[in-house]
Amino acid sequence: MKRIVLLGATGSVGRQTLDIVGAHPDRLQIVGLSAGGNVELLAEQIATFQPARFAVADVAAGERLLHAHPELRDRCLGLGAAAVETLARTEADIVVNALLGYAGLRPTLAALQTGTDVALSNKETMVVAGELVRQAADATGARILPVDSEHSAIFQCLRAGQRHEVRKLVLTASGGPFRTRSRAAMQEITRDEALRHPTWSMGPKITVDSATLMNKGLEVLEARWLFDVDFDHIDILVHPESIVHSLVEFADGSLMAQLGATDMRLPIWYALHEPERPAADFPRLDLAAVGALRFEPLDRERFPCVDLAIRAGRRGGTTPAVLNAANEVAVAAFLDGRIPFGRIAEVIDLVLEAQTVAKADTLGAVHAADAWARRHAAGLLQG
Amino acid sequence: MKRIVLLGATGSVGRQTLDIVGAHPDRLQIVGLSAGGNVELLAEQIATFQPARFAVADVAAGERLLHAHPELRDRCLGLGAAAVETLARTEADIVVNALLGYAGLRPTLAALQTGTDVALSNKETMVVAGELVRQAADATGARILPVDSEHSAIFQCLRAGQRHEVRKLVLTASGGPFRTRSRAAMQEITRDEALRHPTWSMGPKITVDSATLMNKGLEVLEARWLFDVDFDHIDILVHPESIVHSLVEFADGSLMAQLGATDMRLPIWYALHEPERPAADFPRLDLAAVGALRFEPLDRERFPCVDLAIRAGRRGGTTPAVLNAANEVAVAAFLDGRIPFGRIAEVIDLVLEAQTVAKADTLGAVHAADAWARRHAAGLLQG
Repeated sequence: MKRIVLLGATGSVGRQTLDIVGAHPDRLQIVGLSAGGNVELLAEQIATFQPARFAVADVAAGERLLHAHPELRDRCLGLGAAAVETLARTEADIVVNALLGYAGLRPTLAALQTGTDVALSNKETMVVAGELVRQAADATGARILPVDSEHSAIFQCLRAGQRHEVRKLVLTASGGPFRTRSRAAMQEITRDEALRHPTWSMGPKITVDSATLMNKGLEVLEARWLFDVDFDHIDILVHPESIVHSLVEFADGSLMAQLGATDMRLPIWYALHEPERPAADFPRLDLAAVGALRFEPLDRERFPCVDLAIRAGRRGGTTPAVLNAANEVAVAAFLDGRIPFGRIAEVIDLVLEAQTVAKADTLGAVHAADAWARRHAAGLLQG
Repeated sequence: MKRIVLLGATGSVGRQTLDIVGAHPDRLQIVGLSAGGNVELLAEQIATFQPARFAVADVAAGERLLHAHPELRDRCLGLGAAAVETLARTEADIVVNALLGYAGLRPTLAALQTGTDVALSNKETMVVAGELVRQAADATGARILPVDSEHSAIFQCLRAGQRHEVRKLVLTASGGPFRTRSRAAMQEITRDEALRHPTWSMGPKITVDSATLMNKGLEVLEARWLFDVDFDHIDILVHPESIVHSLVEFADGSLMAQLGATDMRLPIWYALHEPERPAADFPRLDLAAVGALRFEPLDRERFPCVDLAIRAGRRGGTTPAVLNAANEVAVAAFLDGRIPFGRIAEVIDLVLEAQTVAKADTLGAVHAADAWARRHAAGLLQG
């Protein structure tokens, strides 16, 4: 029986994790749950999965929940971000971190410092503080298990060789909705266009990141720290069907690929059980029915956000945190209709150019860089 | 330093093996060589690689060699098939069996019985006597390492999970030159048409097997014994580009694939070093340059040889040996212009129907079944 603390239970990855746990009560057990503000759904989840502990990040929503369900008081670890961090330190076999954004970082560190493995869906954790998180894991021997489909694919492909035999990690990218659009036409992309993504249904921020391909740039940063591979050995390959989830090229010239149906439950299931592969009845991939898989080079000119991310990664220190913050501010401005699509990358570029690189050896340093970048980006947008 | 005995040194796989050895004298050494009748090339290979021992299967050719090069006499283990078998028992780290046809079987058994690993390119070994060969390997703990690209791919994919977690082996098939031809038109295929194969340049027998897809049927039989997986868990997927060399589907729904350039040296290199993957400068695969990979279901009606092979495998005992012999006779008749393309499968079918299944627990039983099938097929062709 695997005892799971699930952070971010009411989001997409959180709900799919519970879907899996509900279908396999013989092997998986929820011992802790956290949610942000959707306490109505959290109450249902608590009733179904009966965790020993829970936490609510949004204080007002948490108070509403405890008022409506006073019987839950003795299981509530607390309200607010600190309570989520405390929950991450609860004794468990694995913490599934399905939190969104910057809020995911501290709980990841808390779990790793406690020596608990983390199944990590939260991108920001590795993007803004990859080195710090890597050190925390190495100090206790706790493992970081990727949950998104690309990194899970690489994680699986790496089993076919040893680390020093890896020549290249190849992250596949759907190419987003504007894969075939001309450079000039890309400048004029509207908010509504950007929010229609062909493969996944996601929140607006992530959808815009998929359109600019910043999501892929952030995945390169994640891969660098998840797998301890430097940027010279990470490539991106555009693959519109998103069936090949990623590949690893080995030194002997062999390429290993992991393929599967488009279903987030597969990488979640793998992270929960690796190195085991228990049978599961997720949708199966029928390649003959798919017919063709296409591959294209990435057009780095049309999607400048990818190289911005890699440049930030190479510069190191607090630069990835600055990149991430600048991107969040620029995307928010685009979603508000304040800047055109083409300006997102420009804003990030300007923020990176203005930055003074610092060591990212404490959470405080990361936090300060994040705050500076948000202020600076906001200033640029007003100016 | 890996000490290699290479059987069939002058054929295509043999020459490519020597190409690899010649490029990596720091890690690979030839201690034994055998050839059939091409003693001119063998003499050059002996001069270059200086094996301690050699054997020549064709007695007359061997005598010619020793006459021309009397200085080689003390290194010659003997002439004839028995000498090749003796060579396979020579002390070595690995025997590379690149022999063609039925002649490959006894040397494989000899090496395995001696406890030497076999890198196996010879299809017939596993097709006609898979169970016997499997038993010989299990008795000494010697390993059988596949050399052809499909089985090497499966072998590599299997590293990503445990054997009991395998749901399906998926052998890819180029589909041969008649992949898109109608059923009626297939009957009229001529010898010349059949000998033009799109991807590989091979001998006439193997080229016809690629056109009937009997090669894929034989590979299913090989896979069954190489990986100890029953026929219900082996599939064929048509993939015209031959870039994905094969796949393994695991019980959790994940598909692992191995991809690579079309170069036999890759699987040879892997077999020689597995589980290591030393760096090599074979041509690299550029998926973006390839553009698209296509996948189609196998049309079992148009390619009846595949199901004939699987039926023979399921029936077991000496039936695969009968299938293989009947196929050889029918293909020879087609190449001689005595039967049309469409009749190859019919002849095999008739022979299988006339067969009395026996246990394939001795080489004698296998040999008797082979001889009976050849006689019976020849009789059908005359009748």
